[in-house]
Amino acid sequence: MWDVAEELKAMLVFAEHRYYGESLPFGSNSFKDSKHLNFLTSEQALADFAKLIKYLKRTIPGAKNQPVIALGGSYGGMLAAWFRMKYPHIVVGALASSAPIWQFENIVPCGVFMKAVTTDFRKSGPNCSESIHRSWDAISRLAKKGTGLRWLSEALHLCTPLTNSQDVQHLKDWISETWVNLAMVDYPYESNFLQPLPAWPIKVVCQYLKNPSVSDSLLLQNIFQALNVYYNYSGQVRCLNISETATSSLGAQGWSYQACTEMVMPFCSNGIDDMFEPRSWNLKDYSDECFKLWGVRPRPSWITTMYGGKNISSHTNIIFSNGELDPWSGGGVTKNITDTLVAIVIPDGAHHLDLRANNAFDPTSVLLARSLEVRYMKQWIKDFYASLGKKH
Amino acid sequence: MWDVAEELKAMLVFAEHRYYGESLPFGSNSFKDSKHLNFLTSEQALADFAKLIKYLKRTIPGAKNQPVIALGGSYGGMLAAWFRMKYPHIVVGALASSAPIWQFENIVPCGVFMKAVTTDFRKSGPNCSESIHRSWDAISRLAKKGTGLRWLSEALHLCTPLTNSQDVQHLKDWISETWVNLAMVDYPYESNFLQPLPAWPIKVVCQYLKNPSVSDSLLLQNIFQALNVYYNYSGQVRCLNISETATSSLGAQGWSYQACTEMVMPFCSNGIDDMFEPRSWNLKDYSDECFKLWGVRPRPSWITTMYGGKNISSHTNIIFSNGELDPWSGGGVTKNITDTLVAIVIPDGAHHLDLRANNAFDPTSVLLARSLEVRYMKQWIKDFYASLGKKH
Repeated sequence: MWDVAEELKAMLVFAEHRYYGESLPFGSNSFKDSKHLNFLTSEQALADFAKLIKYLKRTIPGAKNQPVIALGGSYGGMLAAWFRMKYPHIVVGALASSAPIWQFENIVPCGVFMKAVTTDFRKSGPNCSESIHRSWDAISRLAKKGTGLRWLSEALHLCTPLTNSQDVQHLKDWISETWVNLAMVDYPYESNFLQPLPAWPIKVVCQYLKNPSVSDSLLLQNIFQALNVYYNYSGQVRCLNISETATSSLGAQGWSYQACTEMVMPFCSNGIDDMFEPRSWNLKDYSDECFKLWGVRPRPSWITTMYGGKNISSHTNIIFSNGELDPWSGGGVTKNITDTLVAIVIPDGAHHLDLRANNAFDPTSVLLARSLEVRYMKQWIKDFYASLGKKH
Repeated sequence: MWDVAEELKAMLVFAEHRYYGESLPFGSNSFKDSKHLNFLTSEQALADFAKLIKYLKRTIPGAKNQPVIALGGSYGGMLAAWFRMKYPHIVVGALASSAPIWQFENIVPCGVFMKAVTTDFRKSGPNCSESIHRSWDAISRLAKKGTGLRWLSEALHLCTPLTNSQDVQHLKDWISETWVNLAMVDYPYESNFLQPLPAWPIKVVCQYLKNPSVSDSLLLQNIFQALNVYYNYSGQVRCLNISETATSSLGAQGWSYQACTEMVMPFCSNGIDDMFEPRSWNLKDYSDECFKLWGVRPRPSWITTMYGGKNISSHTNIIFSNGELDPWSGGGVTKNITDTLVAIVIPDGAHHLDLRANNAFDPTSVLLARSLEVRYMKQWIKDFYASLGKKH
């Protein structure tokens, strides 16, 4: 956006989503209970954007008859697409980058996400995904030994030692999420989105995971080296904290509530098509957990009812871009739906790489994607002015 | 709908709007206060329809892959149009009959409505609108006389005698609303929508109002005869009750609240382009009245922000039909916007005449309108099946 704003003579506006950052409708009470959280929905967020844009057009000199384009990545990409669908009178088009608008209900199989993570690791080094696949049982076996928990805690340099089997499950979940996050941020250059990382971090990780046929303890020591790439690229970290997977909160509370109401995304793994332990999607357990956390129960069909699921062909002017390395691409739109609902796939891209700033190490595929995106946007702007002309 | 359902092999579903009829979310407490009324919005009503249609498609044998069309008149027509705009994945098209979607903010002049009422009376008999125009001052002059209030109460056969100047204002408002209602239901045959009425009721009314240049008392006696057409077509009514203008409530409470929140329709009259006393549109007074009634203040721009105002050309498959006799046509869509956002004007039609049952006295214009509507609907259905075919 920063790189093309001048060419498009654009003003950039970053609108903060309600209940995130500083936009807390009830201050420190905003997350107190479901009554205070009741206003946290994607529909309300879209309505905020509609009011904001109308306000800006009314108050900023020269803004009145100018076209507006919605842009976003990830959940922000879903919002951008949905905003164009619901408010086509307010934005002339939307760029929805890495927006998994189909990761709901049973629109895509629940296993596509973990399968995509696995593919990244498989392609990033020999035996890499096999090593991870074997690590789960290795952890279980080690944990069952007399001094296993202590050994594991020390081998993995955990800040807080493991004390029971629940901690072991927590450890596995944390390691899984680390691999997931690495797949999301597998960028071609040093970056710092979820953590400070080297270029192509999975390749770096996989250098430690070349041999799956070693002893359990050696395998876990290798896993530690791999985790260390993600958690300690700076070399300053003295122990690993299994209650965190990213350096800064990306609105974890707000998202947790949204995931427990509207944003119900089914995930699963089977340990065959992917490198994770088998875990089925269980709506009842998910719902019970939501009730425990927030006093609410999810409405898993609502997003499809509201935003159309796969049946969106009557809309226009939305670009869905996805990186093939990004596990979220499995729930994204990766094929053109119509002439004006188009998909751009970036083979060497991770999570919304196209929205990141230009970089000397950008692969050609993302440069092409960006230039195509700009071409579409120029067309929307041109069409907008043409339709304005017709009215006069 | 009843007349064409069989031809279209259609199932008819009448969905009751929340807070109307028996659909009271909090039972008898539903209208208690703004907290209980908070869920009464057009957006929530549309969401109900979306959920209902998905439920019906899931549970009714054979309904699954069938197209759905939204139909409605008046506010129901606005909902039908808005439903197609916001949920194009759920309905293939909408027939919005007499839907004044532009009677908001300053999209149309606030005077169009009363002007249209006046035109109906002007065309329905010589001097008819002039007689009404003169009646307001005549009432004021009579009311100022010593026994004027008593005389007026008797001459108009009021159930409750007038006692002060506030009552006189109330009387004028009630008479005005009567003329407005007559314009809405000026149907070509006997009907019973707001009241039991003869065919072309305004023509009947105007037979009593041919001479505006009579004395004040004679003019008011004539006005009584005219009112009697509307309130006493049966001949059974013994006195006129100025706190009612329709035989049964069409959800007056719910609409009053909606008019005080989202559905803010500016109306005005100037006594020059129309036959009414001048009354300007005053948002502040309106808002204060709303606060007194419901403890809420209106959001006059919201409907335009939400539903696009005049900027709706990106949508498809909506028929806007309007009767030229209907005062609501002033805020309706009476010209084609695109090939698939089309307007049908019925010169001899009053409020949503096209949605009424076939009648031997139907003017040709409404027969043509209906047949055109059915033709569009068949096209939508055909397009729907064609797109289904493409997917397989």
